[in-house]
Amino acid sequence: MNSHPRRTSTQVAVVGAGPAGLMLSHLLSLSGIDSIVIDLRERADIEATIRAGILEQGTVDLMTGTGLGDRLLAEGQRHEGIAIRSRGESRRVDFPALTGRAVHLYPQHEVLKDLIAARLAAGGDVLFGVSDVSVHDVTTDTPAVRFTEADGTRVELTCAVIAGCDGSQGVTRTAIPAHARTDYFHAYPHGWFGILTEAPPSSEELVYAHSDRGFALISSRTPTVQRMYFQCDPAEDAAAWSDERVWAELRARVNGNGFELEEGPILQRGVIPMRSYVLDPMRHGRLFLAGDAAHTVPPTGAKGLNLAVADIAVLCQALERFFHQGSADLLESYGRTASDRVWRAQHFSWWMTSMLHTDTDADAFGRRRQLGEIDQVTESVAGSTFLAEAYTGWPIAHTNPDSVVSEAITVSANRAP
Amino acid sequence: MNSHPRRTSTQVAVVGAGPAGLMLSHLLSLSGIDSIVIDLRERADIEATIRAGILEQGTVDLMTGTGLGDRLLAEGQRHEGIAIRSRGESRRVDFPALTGRAVHLYPQHEVLKDLIAARLAAGGDVLFGVSDVSVHDVTTDTPAVRFTEADGTRVELTCAVIAGCDGSQGVTRTAIPAHARTDYFHAYPHGWFGILTEAPPSSEELVYAHSDRGFALISSRTPTVQRMYFQCDPAEDAAAWSDERVWAELRARVNGNGFELEEGPILQRGVIPMRSYVLDPMRHGRLFLAGDAAHTVPPTGAKGLNLAVADIAVLCQALERFFHQGSADLLESYGRTASDRVWRAQHFSWWMTSMLHTDTDADAFGRRRQLGEIDQVTESVAGSTFLAEAYTGWPIAHTNPDSVVSEAITVSANRAP
Repeated sequence: MNSHPRRTSTQVAVVGAGPAGLMLSHLLSLSGIDSIVIDLRERADIEATIRAGILEQGTVDLMTGTGLGDRLLAEGQRHEGIAIRSRGESRRVDFPALTGRAVHLYPQHEVLKDLIAARLAAGGDVLFGVSDVSVHDVTTDTPAVRFTEADGTRVELTCAVIAGCDGSQGVTRTAIPAHARTDYFHAYPHGWFGILTEAPPSSEELVYAHSDRGFALISSRTPTVQRMYFQCDPAEDAAAWSDERVWAELRARVNGNGFELEEGPILQRGVIPMRSYVLDPMRHGRLFLAGDAAHTVPPTGAKGLNLAVADIAVLCQALERFFHQGSADLLESYGRTASDRVWRAQHFSWWMTSMLHTDTDADAFGRRRQLGEIDQVTESVAGSTFLAEAYTGWPIAHTNPDSVVSEAITVSANRAP
Repeated sequence: MNSHPRRTSTQVAVVGAGPAGLMLSHLLSLSGIDSIVIDLRERADIEATIRAGILEQGTVDLMTGTGLGDRLLAEGQRHEGIAIRSRGESRRVDFPALTGRAVHLYPQHEVLKDLIAARLAAGGDVLFGVSDVSVHDVTTDTPAVRFTEADGTRVELTCAVIAGCDGSQGVTRTAIPAHARTDYFHAYPHGWFGILTEAPPSSEELVYAHSDRGFALISSRTPTVQRMYFQCDPAEDAAAWSDERVWAELRARVNGNGFELEEGPILQRGVIPMRSYVLDPMRHGRLFLAGDAAHTVPPTGAKGLNLAVADIAVLCQALERFFHQGSADLLESYGRTASDRVWRAQHFSWWMTSMLHTDTDADAFGRRRQLGEIDQVTESVAGSTFLAEAYTGWPIAHTNPDSVVSEAITVSANRAP
């Protein structure tokens, strides 16, 4: 390791080139604020990892309102509802009718491709494949990030603010000392057995299915590749399942009353655990955490990516105030503002999970009550609206009227759907 | 015991002179159908036992629409909302603004006084203080109820239909054999420590308070007698608590930010368990169960009395069809129709309980998520509406347009509030 690192500086050092870090760098550049983004991974890895796929209305608005809408609007699919299946019957939740909002199906790695392309086209610094990342002096006015570039050069990056956007396994989270933090963690007793299959879509919209055998989710990625999940033991060994056993399980949970899955070769499979995590506070001195670095949600509510974007929208407004107007007030309130949405999203994700998954600890009363809950929510306009509000996403907090965020959302809100 | 019982007959033998049994007998008499009501208790006991106090809009409509509205409207109080308190702040749920409906505070024993007076004034048979009740031949067309009158006379009451309205400890429930039934039971880990206190009301409307120390409910009975509850261990010994300790606990859970309990002498105290129970099906041959005989809810949602009345509204419509039009179709569907509401009410009662009580098994994440839930529900119009719909009560099922029930509800719906 070089004992004389290259010294450089920027206004905002962004650790992590996921949705949070890249979106922050993109928004800041529109506001004339410098940033450098670093990530351990290579660009090709980032652009190839298949993750979430549902964008809330506010995420879509923020992207289209800041020049990231072309591929999203051309290749993404606007989804105006979901189906909730129970006892073999589907009930549709109609988002625009209930809330005036909708979601888009547009996979996360496509969002990342758009963000990386936009950053590079604008001359932004995004350094892939770095290593040995550490953060320093975060409780001073001159924090720093140290890392080794892909070519082996050791770098000390000084800045005014560090944005910790490096996900649930990142280093920035660990820079907050134990005495200054509370960690909220919950492990659900469920896992999701996920597959990618080469088949036409089984449904134009997502299907959330409750059955006696457990939850299943029928989703889509492209016209020829579908994503499906079913609830399983978190310790399940995906490799031990034959393709036929996987399809038999999905059929048993979802098919019926005229609904039949389109089946095909299984391209990929795996079991994901279901966890909730929140770190409080989301800042320590000049280090501000966003997205998975600060919180994890189970996938049931499709909130992970959207929560990262919403954090960034709040953080960007605070940084604009700080750099353009010299006031740290919005940085001070960042954690409080962002965490209001975080806990709503945690509750929503927990609620969707508990309403739709079978719970092996539940008694017969609990299982039957759950059916009453599904009926009550789906048959009530108010209940469905409450669900649709959360699913399509609560409005993004407006704290700084001079922000590019406010402008983007206002422009998009006036755009015809 | 007399070996030659007095034989008598009626169309509907009603076992139990609680809200379900008396309301059924009242409604049937308006439709020209004979019934005899029997109860183990004395009239004075029935009229003096203080129970629930909140009447749903549909219960109020059914009472006022069938001549039982005078005292209810004069002495009962229309409540247009409740307060939900969390972290020392009250948020009001405004029922008429959200649903166009409201509830009335009018204690159950006052409802029973009105029903008994109406039955006796109409020449109805209500036999108090009977003993040795048993039901027979319920799978034939000529079932019978045997009992001993207060004066010692043994009676065999033959009838076309038996209505089992004798509550959770009654005999009618046990007449359904094990092979023909499913019992859904759930014991909550909470109890309610309840007091009656001589004091002015602390609030014009009910206050549902969540706090770190547990749930509390501030309710009222009369301008000078208040009913308050706080969550406790179900095995708690109420007698071991000094008055000061009771008030200290209530203060700690409820007072703050300008809200202060009105305190006074404690007139009565006790711990009630929290249980959910549903018997399925609600009928066996010619025996039809209603109210607590078929199901129990925890008190959190104020649904017990109202669910009994709603069962009876469905059963009455079915009996009118049976006796006036000779068709058993609505009797066949009684259980299905009634149980839809039963499971909604069970879910609502469970939801209010889980949202507002502290759960000693919950992790820190679960406790913080619960605050997010209270925020999300009370700050969303849709969430508050969903709660208000359930609290004020879903519409009573209309299955028979020629029924006195349909007529009563239509008349009341057109009455100015």
